[in-house]
Amino acid sequence: ARKHRIAVIPGDGIGKETTPEGIRVLEAAGRRFGFELQLTEYDWSCDVYAKTGKMMPDDGLDQLKDSDSIFLGAVGWPGVPDHVSLWGLLIPIRRGFDQYANVRPCKLMPGARTPLANRTPAEIDFYVVRENTEGEYSSVGGRMFPGTDREFVSQQSILTRTGTDRIMKYAFELAMTRPRKKVTSATKSNGITFTMPYWDERFEEMAKQYPGVTTDVFHIDILCAHFVQHPDWFDVVVGSNLFGDILSDLGPAVAGSIGIAPSANINPEKIFPSMFEPVHGSAPDIAGKWVCNPIGQIWSGAMMLEHLGEKEAADAIVKTIEVMLAEGGPRTRDMGGNAGTVDVGKALAEAV
Amino acid sequence: ARKHRIAVIPGDGIGKETTPEGIRVLEAAGRRFGFELQLTEYDWSCDVYAKTGKMMPDDGLDQLKDSDSIFLGAVGWPGVPDHVSLWGLLIPIRRGFDQYANVRPCKLMPGARTPLANRTPAEIDFYVVRENTEGEYSSVGGRMFPGTDREFVSQQSILTRTGTDRIMKYAFELAMTRPRKKVTSATKSNGITFTMPYWDERFEEMAKQYPGVTTDVFHIDILCAHFVQHPDWFDVVVGSNLFGDILSDLGPAVAGSIGIAPSANINPEKIFPSMFEPVHGSAPDIAGKWVCNPIGQIWSGAMMLEHLGEKEAADAIVKTIEVMLAEGGPRTRDMGGNAGTVDVGKALAEAV
Ligand SMILES: CC(C)[C@H](C(=O)O)[C@@H](O)C(=O)O
Ligand SMILES: CC(C)[C@H](C(=O)O)[C@@H](O)C(=O)O
Repeated sequence: ARKHRIAVIPGDGIGKETTPEGIRVLEAAGRRFGFELQLTEYDWSCDVYAKTGKMMPDDGLDQLKDSDSIFLGAVGWPGVPDHVSLWGLLIPIRRGFDQYANVRPCKLMPGARTPLANRTPAEIDFYVVRENTEGEYSSVGGRMFPGTDREFVSQQSILTRTGTDRIMKYAFELAMTRPRKKVTSATKSNGITFTMPYWDERFEEMAKQYPGVTTDVFHIDILCAHFVQHPDWFDVVVGSNLFGDILSDLGPAVAGSIGIAPSANINPEKIFPSMFEPVHGSAPDIAGKWVCNPIGQIWSGAMMLEHLGEKEAADAIVKTIEVMLAEGGPRTRDMGGNAGTVDVGKALAEAV
Repeated sequence: ARKHRIAVIPGDGIGKETTPEGIRVLEAAGRRFGFELQLTEYDWSCDVYAKTGKMMPDDGLDQLKDSDSIFLGAVGWPGVPDHVSLWGLLIPIRRGFDQYANVRPCKLMPGARTPLANRTPAEIDFYVVRENTEGEYSSVGGRMFPGTDREFVSQQSILTRTGTDRIMKYAFELAMTRPRKKVTSATKSNGITFTMPYWDERFEEMAKQYPGVTTDVFHIDILCAHFVQHPDWFDVVVGSNLFGDILSDLGPAVAGSIGIAPSANINPEKIFPSMFEPVHGSAPDIAGKWVCNPIGQIWSGAMMLEHLGEKEAADAIVKTIEVMLAEGGPRTRDMGGNAGTVDVGKALAEAV
């Protein structure tokens, strides 16, 4: 059987509850489609930070680097500041492994409660492709004249040619695999006048290489408005680190799937392992009660299988989720049911 | 009678059609409430740029500076790049006159078509207060290694203590005038780690001065999602130049009012004139047909009157808009009717 080495990092809060269900479904898919998962679990989390003062060991990336993929739950817990938890675990993995494409499907699933009026599943089905290593999340900046009236802070946003071109290319390649073959670029070149015009320039350049792909460009402000008013316009949307972050929360919100949306942090060249995680966080308010919805984790697992070359298994999992939602299988509280996390995981594993 | 000196800049496209209707309604309100407008019109626009090579004369700000307020239509036209049109007219006025508070109501008006399901007017009624002079729209940046593989661009985002504190203060003061007395701050301190933690710090400081005001803080990604899922949570939302820009398009989109939303660029100290403009642009696709909706302009006029101390007249105009929308007065195409721009303006002027 084909073997895939998976590093599992449950992380914090409900991540500890969703990852086992993700694994359950992945293993069921393996039995059906003839592959095997070799799992290594890592307890890196805010709990461990409380004991060791580190979110992950100094050689953390080294420990992960020979796995084929990383399957992550959630990172973050009250009492541990984000710059410790996220910047000690999530961000170093994204950057250290050059997972420059953050890919998030925005898809209205049957039975999901979209806040929009009169939208059908066929009308909301697109991807946000987010640059995941540079842009507005830069490490260049500082504070001057602290504590005085002249005090100011500054932070650079950086777009490199390498970083910009490769994310655009990823978006165009993804569009090529889809029926509509359309890429929308998120910009703000009318207000942010050094970086964003460059983004536009590189987008235009890349578009020339893909004459079969339709393109569209919107400023981020009106683009957010269009997400709400015309979600049916979009196929693949490409944005900088910040714009992609915003759009990849807004898209699932519009689709009513923010609680179940998956995400992939991809190193397309496969030089390093990619990482798959649900969009939701560690949800301290419901953690420990085993009532959280594992679908985001399971759907992230499907994206992982696709990346590992198990496309058939991936499609089967997504299909199973859709069927179960449409036909009223067990639902967790957030979807109006009263099933537990494990009930949903087991039902999906069986159905797969 | 009280006199107010108003500089009128119709600008481009439908701005030329909406400003006369705005004036019509303002003058009607003046007759009823006992004030007079002294109007001076300026033809600054992309048309003028085509003839003179300048969006406004070199002494443009000087010409405007003795007016009590500026009433603007729309700026921008195909063929003239934004960095010429916007940065030659709109942005220099905002910055030159230190109009640091950009204020935009997000209000579900009766009869407006919100894309959301099951929302009533009482549930969507909040303000976005946007910092309008610094932040992500900075003039510090550049490009290095042009044309090579090492090429990169960089742009600084700058938050000064002065700029940050005064916009927060404005937001808290506005909240104090409202029944719910709540301020929500838009941040992204978990990803943008130099400027945004400072934003949070100053927000916390300012909140201490207003113990009667409830506060809330959300990262911009999830905040955008909440705008769609829970617009009823918000009262006054304060954001940086970029975040405020995004939220003040998303808010009206959610309220179904993006075509009629007003905006105010305010210099609260009244050292310089403030400027009032609809959120919509110059709409080249429908310009010249006199079918555009003048309500955004008229509503912006109401905000102007409020700023000029004519609160009663301002309230009367907003009320009249609401009544006319609820009772099915003339409507332009965008609202499902077939009235012309002038019909709507005249109906509102008469009703006032
Ligand atoms: C035209 C553009 C520069 C402007 C901005 O972003 O400030 C516009 O979007 C607005 O919100 O008034
Ligand atoms: C937690 C935070 C740093 C992160 C981000 O903005 O990248 C999150 O919002 C996400 O989208 O994965």
